[in-house]
Amino acid sequence: MSDVLLSPEAAIHQLQWRYAVKKFDSSKIIPDATWTALEQSLVLAPSSFGLQPWKFFVVKNPEVRSQLLEHSWNQAQVVDASHLVVLAIKKDMNDTDVDRYIARQAEVHGTTVDALAGYTGMIKGFMGRNTNVDNWSSRQVYIALGQYMTTAAMMGIDTCPIEGFIAPKYDEILGLAALGYAAIVVCPAGYRSAEDKYATMPKVRFATDDVVAYI
Amino acid sequence: MSDVLLSPEAAIHQLQWRYAVKKFDSSKIIPDATWTALEQSLVLAPSSFGLQPWKFFVVKNPEVRSQLLEHSWNQAQVVDASHLVVLAIKKDMNDTDVDRYIARQAEVHGTTVDALAGYTGMIKGFMGRNTNVDNWSSRQVYIALGQYMTTAAMMGIDTCPIEGFIAPKYDEILGLAALGYAAIVVCPAGYRSAEDKYATMPKVRFATDDVVAYI
Repeated sequence: MSDVLLSPEAAIHQLQWRYAVKKFDSSKIIPDATWTALEQSLVLAPSSFGLQPWKFFVVKNPEVRSQLLEHSWNQAQVVDASHLVVLAIKKDMNDTDVDRYIARQAEVHGTTVDALAGYTGMIKGFMGRNTNVDNWSSRQVYIALGQYMTTAAMMGIDTCPIEGFIAPKYDEILGLAALGYAAIVVCPAGYRSAEDKYATMPKVRFATDDVVAYI
Repeated sequence: MSDVLLSPEAAIHQLQWRYAVKKFDSSKIIPDATWTALEQSLVLAPSSFGLQPWKFFVVKNPEVRSQLLEHSWNQAQVVDASHLVVLAIKKDMNDTDVDRYIARQAEVHGTTVDALAGYTGMIKGFMGRNTNVDNWSSRQVYIALGQYMTTAAMMGIDTCPIEGFIAPKYDEILGLAALGYAAIVVCPAGYRSAEDKYATMPKVRFATDDVVAYI
């Protein structure tokens, strides 16, 4: 298995290589096999209790992407990148969602829902005490965002996380509201343009000693 | 550069290999070079505006880790794993923090704070309109968590994200409150124990078609 692992030096190299792309090369498309890995980085992302309080909308239709542009502070990455992912939460996660997850767990692990009753009750108890479930779900979505961008970087694929968009407009245009989902963050993926001058600017980070402390 | 990249197949393999470790092998320690890459996955994590509203506390002292155990629902990963990271937000991010970041940007990019006045004003305007800055900072921390766990997986290092801990107790024991930080999420890293039966259980995820939609 060790032949598939990334070395620490390669990991640091790719983390340094990554930046928030300002201008994508709209002529370059992510190959299918590479996209499958990115799709799986979302599907396989960890979440609290494994509940997966999310759905990922990949917008391929160019006309729809054009409509989103004006609700994205005209950030051209939304239309130029190979792929555009809108990461959404399932709104108002409740006992029904927990039951759906537990049913899936029983299916995957070859057991019964009854056998998982203790775990089900524990999750429902937590959810019942959670005073802002949508916010908790949103944090989980940011784990998926992180896993997706990092997986992309390790494969040499560019991304640009975008919080600057009008979420209610996205929900309306993509039909998310009707489905019970809400857009939280957007992330195009593809290839940086040779003209993007931000690609070669030094990354601005505080010194390691300023953000990492050892106790 | 292509020799340092991960193939899509290897990426999927490692994402499948990753799971939330229940029992770490306390005898195995992450080598220094590998830890450096993990440390940098935190330092180099993307954040909104690049503001880095965070600090990462690596708890090495065994006595302190023992103290944290009872405030972590006795989850033994907190004491058994090679490394324990507490991901914290800088509380109440304000104009002073923005100024600190802009000063760093001017330093790294070899320009002046005055030349960045427009960008500074834009960020401060956003922060001023943000009605829950700590929550926004917390979401950024979850990006760092995702990048850290994914980088670990790609290098064959195990992790276990933990939300189940008493944050005020962590803040007190680690002295975070006095520094203006607050613990948000915890993530031990190391090596799975051969006795952890969860390692071989099939991962419970909804079907790809149920969580990824193409528009």
